[in-house]
Amino acid sequence: MEKRDPEIITEKELMRTWSRFMRAQGKIIGLVPTMGYLHQGHISLIEEARKYTDLLVVSIYVNPGQFSPTEDLSTYPSDFRGDIDKLTALPGGVDVVFHPQNLYDYRNNGSESGDNDTSSGATRRNNNSGDAKEEGREEAVMSCIERQSGNAHETWIRVERLERGLCGKSRPVFFRGVATVVAKLFNIVEPDVAVFGKKDYQQWRVIRRMVRDLDFPINVIGSEIVRDDDGLALSSRNVRLSTEEREKALSINMSLSRAKIAAQNGQVSCSDLRNSVIQAIQEAGGKVDYAEIVSQENLEAVEEIKSPVVFSVAAWFGKVRLIDNMEIDVRVQHVNTQVWT
Amino acid sequence: MEKRDPEIITEKELMRTWSRFMRAQGKIIGLVPTMGYLHQGHISLIEEARKYTDLLVVSIYVNPGQFSPTEDLSTYPSDFRGDIDKLTALPGGVDVVFHPQNLYDYRNNGSESGDNDTSSGATRRNNNSGDAKEEGREEAVMSCIERQSGNAHETWIRVERLERGLCGKSRPVFFRGVATVVAKLFNIVEPDVAVFGKKDYQQWRVIRRMVRDLDFPINVIGSEIVRDDDGLALSSRNVRLSTEEREKALSINMSLSRAKIAAQNGQVSCSDLRNSVIQAIQEAGGKVDYAEIVSQENLEAVEEIKSPVVFSVAAWFGKVRLIDNMEIDVRVQHVNTQVWT
Repeated sequence: MEKRDPEIITEKELMRTWSRFMRAQGKIIGLVPTMGYLHQGHISLIEEARKYTDLLVVSIYVNPGQFSPTEDLSTYPSDFRGDIDKLTALPGGVDVVFHPQNLYDYRNNGSESGDNDTSSGATRRNNNSGDAKEEGREEAVMSCIERQSGNAHETWIRVERLERGLCGKSRPVFFRGVATVVAKLFNIVEPDVAVFGKKDYQQWRVIRRMVRDLDFPINVIGSEIVRDDDGLALSSRNVRLSTEEREKALSINMSLSRAKIAAQNGQVSCSDLRNSVIQAIQEAGGKVDYAEIVSQENLEAVEEIKSPVVFSVAAWFGKVRLIDNMEIDVRVQHVNTQVWT
Repeated sequence: MEKRDPEIITEKELMRTWSRFMRAQGKIIGLVPTMGYLHQGHISLIEEARKYTDLLVVSIYVNPGQFSPTEDLSTYPSDFRGDIDKLTALPGGVDVVFHPQNLYDYRNNGSESGDNDTSSGATRRNNNSGDAKEEGREEAVMSCIERQSGNAHETWIRVERLERGLCGKSRPVFFRGVATVVAKLFNIVEPDVAVFGKKDYQQWRVIRRMVRDLDFPINVIGSEIVRDDDGLALSSRNVRLSTEEREKALSINMSLSRAKIAAQNGQVSCSDLRNSVIQAIQEAGGKVDYAEIVSQENLEAVEEIKSPVVFSVAAWFGKVRLIDNMEIDVRVQHVNTQVWT
């Protein structure tokens, strides 16, 4: 198959025009939302999306709305030219890369415009804490694009129960930022199918629930985690691990893997399973943010594994926060071909 | 023009199929969302929508998500057969009445289904306060369909600044419920144009802001207030006023009208204008919820009228809460042909 550059679209209106033109010809359109710095995990999402669609849009946009002012927006890795090269090299390629400059800039939206406060159109490097803090809001929810007055962006989607636990505890702005930007992308790209990775398990559940609750006409598919040969779940943040930190970080997938086997061998007490994972990560030098066993659909904590659960972990190694998720179904035989123990 | 019954559609999927079929034929589709019990105000929205569209959908759905458990969901008036008769009698009619039973029932949504808790599919008469209160949520935001766990509806759209003031103060669940149900209707009906009345001025602004911020591909139009001959703004709730209460309620539009003339004659101090309206309503026996002069776009309070504002009032007469809104632009000549003084 001949290699071809994807079409790069940066404007919302052009993106929607492309989609509508293609849909009018009966094409099924897929969307894979990313923040760029693509790796094999993203490629697997693209390959999954291709199964269900005629045409593929990959969005590359680092969304300031899901970062708090103290988080790593300014150091989030990026390599747009490298991303395009990777997509071009794919067998089959992708059709469009949607790469907007700023999804929160409404100054060209006619009468319902943004104001002239340029900070309302937040840039990637704008880690200004805004004025929200000063007025002392009731909710401690503030992202890099927050404002207290004027015409700047102010609409947020909250998936109120699913957003609370796991990563939501330490990242209170994260899921409302993700849900909101994904809704925006859905309304701009108008895909039939969207694919999210189960690596970000809670995110996938939040998006599925949002799509159901807001009646988006989109089929949301969860794609399996892709791991390196040593078992570490692929993440754009892995590049920031030192060799030593990376070695230590393997304690996450190794302990999760052991926990899965233990559960399938009958050890279904969640406190025991959690303790062993926490201990393994701590002994390796990691700092556990959480290690919880929750139901797959609601992400509500369980005490004993009876129905399908996910063992969800977040831990810091150095300055890098990693997450991993292991689905466990004790009703089925253990069939993993590769285990890191 | 021959009279014709509108097609009545109750299922989400059928509604979307109809819209997509029509759009594929190049038709421009309009949506007028209503809670039924139609009056001339609704008819004016329909007539406004017809200017911009080929086909018209009127939705009739009393949305439990915008009522708190202590509000008047159970007594909200309804007359579906009468509504259909009124729509049929319209010159040009309407094409579809979308009349879903329950927009929050997801039991037919495949794997991302609702749970078996039938209260998740709230009915109109279900004023159950749910279990949210018991757990003492951080935010005092709870509607008639609120749940604390399980798979029930949990996604809410917040337009964080515009939802706070005016009606948002006394009705904390209202605008998130409105924004959420309107987003659902937008995703189900997929209209090109939607029309809202300026009678519910804050609602109109909330919806416009949501559409901008979430990039809905929909043109939201505000339609002017329709008043009875005596000047009372039309509302489905007016039917619940006694003759005497209705007479007293005219103090709202009369005092607003006087305030507008005063402002256009140079009296631009908002505290003076507000005091005279509050006094007039109180003297008539009404209980003022709020009487505020705010900028038209942000709904932020102003002290002196320099740019276009809206004078926004909510007041109780007996058990009925009425709202009215008067746009004031001191830069233009007073041109009202009818004033109630």
